[in-house]
Amino acid sequence: MSLVLEHTPLLSSTSLPIAEALGLPLTEDIGSNGYYPPFHKAMMDGYAVRTADAGKTVRVVGEIAASDVATEYFPVGSCMAIMTGAPCPPGTEAVVKKENTLRSGVGVTLPALIVPGQHIAAKGSECQEDSLLLKKGTVVTPLVIATLAAFGIKTIKVFPYPSIAIITTGNELVRPGEKLGAAQIHDSNGPMLVAMAKSFGISNVTLLHADDRLESLERALEQVAKVEIVIFTGGASYGNYDIVPKALNRFGIEIIFHKVTNGSGKSFLFGEKSSQLFFGLQGNPLPCHMCFYRYVVPAIHQMAGKSLNRIYHSGKLTSPLSIKNGKCNGNDAHFILARAEIRNGGWQVTQVKTKSSADIFTIYSANSYITLPPGVHDISGGTTVDFLLIGEH
Amino acid sequence: MSLVLEHTPLLSSTSLPIAEALGLPLTEDIGSNGYYPPFHKAMMDGYAVRTADAGKTVRVVGEIAASDVATEYFPVGSCMAIMTGAPCPPGTEAVVKKENTLRSGVGVTLPALIVPGQHIAAKGSECQEDSLLLKKGTVVTPLVIATLAAFGIKTIKVFPYPSIAIITTGNELVRPGEKLGAAQIHDSNGPMLVAMAKSFGISNVTLLHADDRLESLERALEQVAKVEIVIFTGGASYGNYDIVPKALNRFGIEIIFHKVTNGSGKSFLFGEKSSQLFFGLQGNPLPCHMCFYRYVVPAIHQMAGKSLNRIYHSGKLTSPLSIKNGKCNGNDAHFILARAEIRNGGWQVTQVKTKSSADIFTIYSANSYITLPPGVHDISGGTTVDFLLIGEH
Repeated sequence: MSLVLEHTPLLSSTSLPIAEALGLPLTEDIGSNGYYPPFHKAMMDGYAVRTADAGKTVRVVGEIAASDVATEYFPVGSCMAIMTGAPCPPGTEAVVKKENTLRSGVGVTLPALIVPGQHIAAKGSECQEDSLLLKKGTVVTPLVIATLAAFGIKTIKVFPYPSIAIITTGNELVRPGEKLGAAQIHDSNGPMLVAMAKSFGISNVTLLHADDRLESLERALEQVAKVEIVIFTGGASYGNYDIVPKALNRFGIEIIFHKVTNGSGKSFLFGEKSSQLFFGLQGNPLPCHMCFYRYVVPAIHQMAGKSLNRIYHSGKLTSPLSIKNGKCNGNDAHFILARAEIRNGGWQVTQVKTKSSADIFTIYSANSYITLPPGVHDISGGTTVDFLLIGEH
Repeated sequence: MSLVLEHTPLLSSTSLPIAEALGLPLTEDIGSNGYYPPFHKAMMDGYAVRTADAGKTVRVVGEIAASDVATEYFPVGSCMAIMTGAPCPPGTEAVVKKENTLRSGVGVTLPALIVPGQHIAAKGSECQEDSLLLKKGTVVTPLVIATLAAFGIKTIKVFPYPSIAIITTGNELVRPGEKLGAAQIHDSNGPMLVAMAKSFGISNVTLLHADDRLESLERALEQVAKVEIVIFTGGASYGNYDIVPKALNRFGIEIIFHKVTNGSGKSFLFGEKSSQLFFGLQGNPLPCHMCFYRYVVPAIHQMAGKSLNRIYHSGKLTSPLSIKNGKCNGNDAHFILARAEIRNGGWQVTQVKTKSSADIFTIYSANSYITLPPGVHDISGGTTVDFLLIGEH
């Protein structure tokens, strides 16, 4: 994992409309471009008053609705009706709530106690002109969008999410909806990885297919020359038809890491060419899902300048767990697909067992990965383990 | 809350492309339309062999790549080279890994032990024809998409997410990018709520504005006649210019619940008309965010047939907490905006204090809601409290 992140660049800062920046960190401090509120604002429906008139009946000399410009001064002995959000007229010392007054014709009786400044949000009370509004690195959330919008800010600079291309490989694969040949299967990795990328906030996702000829893969590579993260599925082992390493070589892509655990295609390849990253994932859906979650997602975060902040939960194993050899994660921690459920107020975690790594029919109930430290292989039922909820990822 | 859900209908089941159904529950069982694998599939690069030939050197009489159709029978004393994913030719009793053999010209020496069936995924071993693939109610995740794709299924029936319209009200509001009048402010609720809706999976979001004239709001209501959830911000209290209740009345919308805590616009309105829901939220961003998270999100989930499954965390309060009156949540639990951070291995939670409910500049650091049972008003620092992470919602 650390090897992947060592080679993962931060993308260039770019301007995005605030609505498209959700989840991304700001690349610069944002200062206020004015006072907020921009005027002394009434916080209640009621009357703008002078404190000297507490307890008295005074004449209502005008009415100010939200968006009205209040320029008329009102003297002691008078007041002005005012609506929530409206600017206080000159002379206003406090706002009294409508409910605390008694109106009779053009006169209104004010409460006996009026605190100076009450129910007024003074100009600049929440934010002064030229003050720091949002710090560099702040992740854009809906609340941050509200802050930006309040200052009329339409676009901001962020490190964007990378674009992603997924290239499925193999003559045997057919897209859903197309007719299967006698020795073909439908591609499941492509649609799965597209859904994963989108669930992590990536909107720019391309899905391509290459057959087992080198030219076909090279054509696909030409098409993704400007894509920041390129993912292959299948074709990364050393079988006769495994052309990914050959094609990468021809394109001047440096292979940083290439782990082949056996001849079954259970391998993981990582390469780079200037700031482009290449991930060769397995042809089987389970290791493909796991390696995307485990290696590609942290790279996506790092490119966008985000910290990963995965939240680990603890739960009790419902049954013993034993790790087979041949996992793509080597000497790192193990990630084991599981179902976590809250029972009797605590998390219970059950490994989702599969018939093979190509088995995708027994695993739809999975909602988490149990994470085990490297070297831990056998765990008895009832042990407390850490896990990550993957939910809709 | 329960009053909202009592009036929230389940939307009609609809067909969606699998990629657009992420996060939604299936409305019907899905059966397999064939065997999986659809043929006896090699799981390794190597040789398709007869077990009687264990330890012998046999002749390689052919080669089968993925997608090749293997019809040629091979007798004892011979074998065929085979690639991962390819169909086993007639006669195959096992597949041996390439690494466990020694090739010399057209001959290959096989290992001494060959287990019948090894490295073969037999036809139908993962899924039989006409078996139950995915149960009704299963939420579509990337793994479920992989399962569906494997059977060439392109569209599925789900309860869709509702469409949402947000109508901001008030003469004083100006959209970001437009010039402010002397007594105007930029709208922050609209962009915030659009971002929230999108972060909960809703793609169909419309943002409209109505000024303080009844006709303006009525025009907006005409435009959203087919939208499932309509949200107003501001205008739901009983001030002179609060026209939302009047307009709803004219459109035959039944007001189920209308809580006005004081004259400041801190109110919450809930109404319905046949299967359309109407939420009147406050004009200030904080109660607006809270009521969307608290009341609208559960309604969105119920319309889409999803269970809410909010995951509560526990953390220690870093400082005492005191609840003011006038919250829109009345006798329900309290939701208090907070910042939660992991320190020394445990969650620490700090209330995010604001200068007023219109204050949006001190709250961008909030990432959670502390939830307190009804009736609890004062809590000392160090107490363990429950909270919900809101992250990018």
